[in-house]
Amino acid sequence: MLYALCYDFRMRIKLTVAYDGTDYCGWQVQPNGITIQEKLNQAVSDLFGTGIQTIGASRTDSGVHALGNVAVFDAETRMPASKVAFALNERLPRDIVIQKSEEVPADFHPRFAKTNKVYEYRILNRTFPDPLLSRYTYFFHRKLDEGLMDEEAQALAGEHDFTSFASIKSQTNTFVRTIHEIRVTRDAHDVITIHVEGNGFLYNQVRIIAGSLILVGSGQREPGFIKKALEKKDREASGPTAPPEGLTLVRIDY
Amino acid sequence: MLYALCYDFRMRIKLTVAYDGTDYCGWQVQPNGITIQEKLNQAVSDLFGTGIQTIGASRTDSGVHALGNVAVFDAETRMPASKVAFALNERLPRDIVIQKSEEVPADFHPRFAKTNKVYEYRILNRTFPDPLLSRYTYFFHRKLDEGLMDEEAQALAGEHDFTSFASIKSQTNTFVRTIHEIRVTRDAHDVITIHVEGNGFLYNQVRIIAGSLILVGSGQREPGFIKKALEKKDREASGPTAPPEGLTLVRIDY
Repeated sequence: MLYALCYDFRMRIKLTVAYDGTDYCGWQVQPNGITIQEKLNQAVSDLFGTGIQTIGASRTDSGVHALGNVAVFDAETRMPASKVAFALNERLPRDIVIQKSEEVPADFHPRFAKTNKVYEYRILNRTFPDPLLSRYTYFFHRKLDEGLMDEEAQALAGEHDFTSFASIKSQTNTFVRTIHEIRVTRDAHDVITIHVEGNGFLYNQVRIIAGSLILVGSGQREPGFIKKALEKKDREASGPTAPPEGLTLVRIDY
Repeated sequence: MLYALCYDFRMRIKLTVAYDGTDYCGWQVQPNGITIQEKLNQAVSDLFGTGIQTIGASRTDSGVHALGNVAVFDAETRMPASKVAFALNERLPRDIVIQKSEEVPADFHPRFAKTNKVYEYRILNRTFPDPLLSRYTYFFHRKLDEGLMDEEAQALAGEHDFTSFASIKSQTNTFVRTIHEIRVTRDAHDVITIHVEGNGFLYNQVRIIAGSLILVGSGQREPGFIKKALEKKDREASGPTAPPEGLTLVRIDY
């Protein structure tokens, strides 16, 4: 069956990756400290042969979590793409879990493709911390007005130059991005969630939005602060970068 | 003001204690391994003077969590009882947090007083684990029928001899307990919660109930299994003890 031997078993596999970022130095491989990408590269290489590098969609920071980050890699295998998730999970630590594996076209690139990204920033807003939530929420005890935060956040919806809401370390050609949806809600356990969807986010953008909304919600800044900060196109005009533990990359729609 | 000097500042303080039990060898002080009570005794002694021992309401097992366990201790202090929580939290690790502190009568005993205890056992029931839930849920991938589990669980409501649902290591005069309420529900994230309230629970009772309901919910046992097991008054007649990470002591009402 020479025919079968000539068949090309090389394929590009897309992974949906969830992780608890608490104990990692972020996504991207770096010399000092263990990263999620490093653990993933090890698992993929162990399964399919040495030296395979994954390409990630979003290089989340140290301490940031994900339910649906995306990574791709190329491998020669006859394993059905959908089974790859199970085989990789056996090789990954408990705090990194592949949620889905699927074949994609060879030219699919997770960072250059058009996407809708969904992030959530969670704040536990009550008198005392909850030890069962402390890894995944930012604890803020001063009373926040989530209704006001939601109104204020609407100034960010749409296409804007988000210079004021990007780290000064951002490396980008343009600070223009589009936020399709942003809403702030409080649940029965006093967790305030800032849910934001957009076509792409600048470095630290969601955490700076969260830090700025907290200033308004706690009464440290007047209503209108967010709109004014946006117009100034100056990082100094917005609020601080909220801590990483509150941030989760929920999903990336392609 | 001799009058003031003679005033008795000794009081009994009741603490509501929340903790992530993952990294502890349970509640009760023991020679091998760090326990929650040990950390609490250290914090109380650091604040009020050496050698103070706390008395806990529920000696939760290794790996079990709490949102509202209860402990009391006696101290001589002029600090308002309500402020004790703040002072202790400064002296406790991040995964143990006092939620409330209040003065109680000197004869109040957290274990001998009449109570309603509320426990929840959580099962993540989907194809892949969620790393943001794995510390606080038991992962079970085989499809569970939560409706059937709820029906089956109703056999446990009321006053019964729970010999079949207690560890053979139980030390007790009577196996008769009353379950006031038990219900099984599934949320949008495929977390199945077994919520149970009662006047007291035997050693491992909630975890054996959970393990037994899982057998029925997954089709490994026929409906009616729980009722029959209860009637047999034999630990061999029920299911396995479900793992500790799924169990949370939610609250104790006095």
